[in-house]
Amino acid sequence: MTCELALPAWLDEFVGDWKAPLTSLEQRMRLAVALASENVKHRTGGPFGAIVVEDHSSRLLGVGVNLVTTLELSLAHAEMVAVSLAQSAARNWNLGAGSGAQLVTSCEPCAMCFGAVPWSGVKSIIWGASKEDAEAAGFDEGDKPPDWAASLERRGILTRGGVLKAEAAAVLKRYAKKNGAIYHPEKS
Amino acid sequence: MTCELALPAWLDEFVGDWKAPLTSLEQRMRLAVALASENVKHRTGGPFGAIVVEDHSSRLLGVGVNLVTTLELSLAHAEMVAVSLAQSAARNWNLGAGSGAQLVTSCEPCAMCFGAVPWSGVKSIIWGASKEDAEAAGFDEGDKPPDWAASLERRGILTRGGVLKAEAAAVLKRYAKKNGAIYHPEKS
Repeated sequence: MTCELALPAWLDEFVGDWKAPLTSLEQRMRLAVALASENVKHRTGGPFGAIVVEDHSSRLLGVGVNLVTTLELSLAHAEMVAVSLAQSAARNWNLGAGSGAQLVTSCEPCAMCFGAVPWSGVKSIIWGASKEDAEAAGFDEGDKPPDWAASLERRGILTRGGVLKAEAAAVLKRYAKKNGAIYHPEKS
Repeated sequence: MTCELALPAWLDEFVGDWKAPLTSLEQRMRLAVALASENVKHRTGGPFGAIVVEDHSSRLLGVGVNLVTTLELSLAHAEMVAVSLAQSAARNWNLGAGSGAQLVTSCEPCAMCFGAVPWSGVKSIIWGASKEDAEAAGFDEGDKPPDWAASLERRGILTRGGVLKAEAAAVLKRYAKKNGAIYHPEKS
């Protein structure tokens, strides 16, 4: 038995064609949001995108989009895919082993992705749209501890939300307007 | 870019040779704990095992062991592996689509695996050793909401801990005694 986290066919070329620098948080978020938007356009999953970047060099270490329905794997959230592919490329489960890695995601992490962050070794997590934006589009973010961001900070992981919030939330809104699939056991 | 959740070579034969029924919670847990123990013996990962069982038929839908260090993937906890392989085998991310699926894990889920449970569609989660047992062996369980089990129950997911607790905790203790690797960014 085996299963694979494989990116959709359109993604490699899209990322290869992305020539903008990834120096600032906004530049990094622009790519994460663009991946979310493209994922909806290509009908390969939910409206979520994420990247992992080496913080000091701005080198792209991994990319991900939501692939729950495409891969038939409930763990295939954008953050989990981006982190896993970065770890596979580095052949190291600990993304903190080199210089600091940053996870940039188009939406606030759900309960699972929040829990996955400390195990990944990333040194910071940056998100765009909020939990409320995701919920307004019909998504369930799960139950995180009330002080979840502080909990990451206490573990030495920097957090910052609301980067390009309007652009990130707009992708969710467009998805909801088109009645995109909400893949959740209680709603399917 | 791609990455694979593949089980270690010993596992298929071990599970194939497991002839005991999987009718009761204790029988199911016995297999999960045996997988944890074998995983340590074969040096293929941490002391954690999990299975997914179709509740009414007791059919085994998926198996998992901790493969973080083997696969170089921080998400490769036993529960995530078992759920993903069950979903892949069913070609359905929603394990609640058929009759009820049950996740049986040798240890209380960490923050990530807790968050993953509602997305998987399982109808119940059963665990053996407690968070305190895992912490005593040097593992970090992450920060779950204080009422995490009640949070699952509110979502219609039954929870029960402490099944074969002594046997499950014994595997953790043996691992700690042998100075098994604690794969955590802060400790590596």
